[in-house]
Amino acid sequence: MEVIKGGVTAAKGFEAASAAAGIKYQDRTDMALIYSLKPCKTAGTFTTNVVKAAPVKWDQRIVEEKVKAQAVVINSGIANACTGEEGMGYCEETAKKAADILGVDEKGILLGSTGVIGMQLPMEKVKNGIRILAEQKGHTIEDGTHAAKAIMTTDTCEKEIAVTIEIGGKKVTIGGMAKGSGMIHPNMCTMLAFLTTDAVISRKAMKAALSADVSDTYNMISVDGDTSTNDTVLLLANGMADNKKIKLDTKEYEEFKEALHYVNEYLAKKIAGDGEGATALLEAKVIGAKTKEQAKTLAKSIVCSNLTKAAIAGHDANWGRILCAMGYAGTAFDPEKVDLVFESAAGKIAIIQNGKALAYSEEKATEILSCPEITVTADVKEGKEQASAWGCDLTHGYIDINADYRS
Amino acid sequence: MEVIKGGVTAAKGFEAASAAAGIKYQDRTDMALIYSLKPCKTAGTFTTNVVKAAPVKWDQRIVEEKVKAQAVVINSGIANACTGEEGMGYCEETAKKAADILGVDEKGILLGSTGVIGMQLPMEKVKNGIRILAEQKGHTIEDGTHAAKAIMTTDTCEKEIAVTIEIGGKKVTIGGMAKGSGMIHPNMCTMLAFLTTDAVISRKAMKAALSADVSDTYNMISVDGDTSTNDTVLLLANGMADNKKIKLDTKEYEEFKEALHYVNEYLAKKIAGDGEGATALLEAKVIGAKTKEQAKTLAKSIVCSNLTKAAIAGHDANWGRILCAMGYAGTAFDPEKVDLVFESAAGKIAIIQNGKALAYSEEKATEILSCPEITVTADVKEGKEQASAWGCDLTHGYIDINADYRS
Repeated sequence: MEVIKGGVTAAKGFEAASAAAGIKYQDRTDMALIYSLKPCKTAGTFTTNVVKAAPVKWDQRIVEEKVKAQAVVINSGIANACTGEEGMGYCEETAKKAADILGVDEKGILLGSTGVIGMQLPMEKVKNGIRILAEQKGHTIEDGTHAAKAIMTTDTCEKEIAVTIEIGGKKVTIGGMAKGSGMIHPNMCTMLAFLTTDAVISRKAMKAALSADVSDTYNMISVDGDTSTNDTVLLLANGMADNKKIKLDTKEYEEFKEALHYVNEYLAKKIAGDGEGATALLEAKVIGAKTKEQAKTLAKSIVCSNLTKAAIAGHDANWGRILCAMGYAGTAFDPEKVDLVFESAAGKIAIIQNGKALAYSEEKATEILSCPEITVTADVKEGKEQASAWGCDLTHGYIDINADYRS
Repeated sequence: MEVIKGGVTAAKGFEAASAAAGIKYQDRTDMALIYSLKPCKTAGTFTTNVVKAAPVKWDQRIVEEKVKAQAVVINSGIANACTGEEGMGYCEETAKKAADILGVDEKGILLGSTGVIGMQLPMEKVKNGIRILAEQKGHTIEDGTHAAKAIMTTDTCEKEIAVTIEIGGKKVTIGGMAKGSGMIHPNMCTMLAFLTTDAVISRKAMKAALSADVSDTYNMISVDGDTSTNDTVLLLANGMADNKKIKLDTKEYEEFKEALHYVNEYLAKKIAGDGEGATALLEAKVIGAKTKEQAKTLAKSIVCSNLTKAAIAGHDANWGRILCAMGYAGTAFDPEKVDLVFESAAGKIAIIQNGKALAYSEEKATEILSCPEITVTADVKEGKEQASAWGCDLTHGYIDINADYRS
């Protein structure tokens, strides 16, 4: 596997574009298009929130009914959630307009929205945006980056990646873009992630690879514990790599899955590290667990703890909060066997052994916790399983962004 | 039922005291004593965190073994959690010293600790503190208030209350004190609450009344989603009111339970409203629920949502976040039937009806949300059950307190 430049336009036959439609933001782009020269097989995972945004319901139907899709139209600024019949109607209108302008089947237009809940989309602006997107679309790396920028809300940077693998002598590419950065506590998948591949692959293999991996990547990040109404991960495959078809449970499937995992973990970590107001990415790694499930439960509880997150913001090695968060995670373990180690670019330090504090240097610990990427490893010494979860620190920036997000 | 002045010393035969032992804080009191002239029956509920502080394990044994207790010794500043064998040893030493100085049975000394996790107690200071407590103890209202002040950590004010009822012509009093204000997400009970009563009451009735009520009061508050290692609610009954014994499932039991509920709800709300950095108490009331459990789940999810809490800090009627929090609570309901109303001393305003925004005045909404006590009522229109949960806003103050709590 090789990591290459680019994002959603890296795979053969995919184009992208952005447009400044003025939906809610001024002076920036707020609509994006992903377009494929050929219709694509799709796989997707969606929010488990009872309150589902209109575009989530829309996409879910397309994926479930196995309709081939040729484009994704995404807007930022307004989530089109809690918008009732009217909001569903706007999905249909958007899809019709895009199909008309792009000259593709309207049944194959996927949608994505992110932003404020409860506002209706200004349809004239959306339609005008679609016209711009259709005119602008292109296959360069830059076109992909423009799309990744347009879907940002409170994100501070775009998030994209691409990798290639070889399947039977043919180069297969997977690219992706994603956005955070608040209301991030995916229970099924993250806010918005769009993955494109030119692989020839069976629908079953696509679905299996995506579903299995989402639970280890997007579902293991948390910014604020709030599971969004709009969480969506979509994978589009247009088959243009011309490789021998990738089928479930083959060597090629494993290779594809591994590459997809790399893309998903990369994007998931980017979302966590760019959480609202965040200054640091916190990885919680639980090792020595009895089961993978136990390791995941404990790791996720650590990155979800407000107190731990605030301590990280203060570069404070407040390990008691970490042990406390493990304690209320809802899985049994022996706190008096736990070892805890902090690690970052500034070094590594053992903090507790068998549940009790070592005589470590607070100064060194603070130095380690002042880096932008921090890992805390907890060894529960009960078995051989392990898992990681990713979160971020809780800062004044989070309050600033969210105490007045709508204005 | 009548609300009277005072706290833990309001009931007959109870005394209290505070001492500045210098355990961790300087220039303030940090130890408290509750003392009863006669040995007390006890009931208690404790944290469900796997990581249990030493004093929690200590008290749990006393309550379970039905040992009569005559005193509670409490310290703030250090939690005596994650302190291993050494920490348990200090519990024994503290109890021995207190029993010796107070001249009571050492088996009947209950303990409470709150503060930093992982530090060992400075036992010489603790013992000296006990000497001061024994000298200072008294039965006045002020003695009770002093004790309520000494158990505070990041609390901004002491929390105490007392009520009286009449049981068969005899006056029965229940008093209580509690402390918050971080790591508050009780799963069994809250951080620390101590309740005293002079009622003559069966152990069964005490236990039933306390257990049933804790799930509707302390378990319905959340400051930050972190379930503490030290959560403890203790009820002490010394029988000095000389009333006819209160037994389970009698009219008198119901009266006692109602009075106890008043005390518990009052203290629970005080803890929520005095959450770390909080400027407002947020009550989430869910009505029209199919079951009480559904109402509780939805109400608690609202007060636990960081995004909702940040919106309240900004006096922003961001109802989408409330609906979103209900959506991921883990219970089914129809979002398109929900009505939402905000209410405070500044008035009342309907925000959404049947899941969609009404044309309400944002200005009026902001005025209502700028009060120190706010209620949001969500009607899910599925049945007749209801429940309330209490939380607070998420502010810069929370970050300030927790990014550097240990120093």
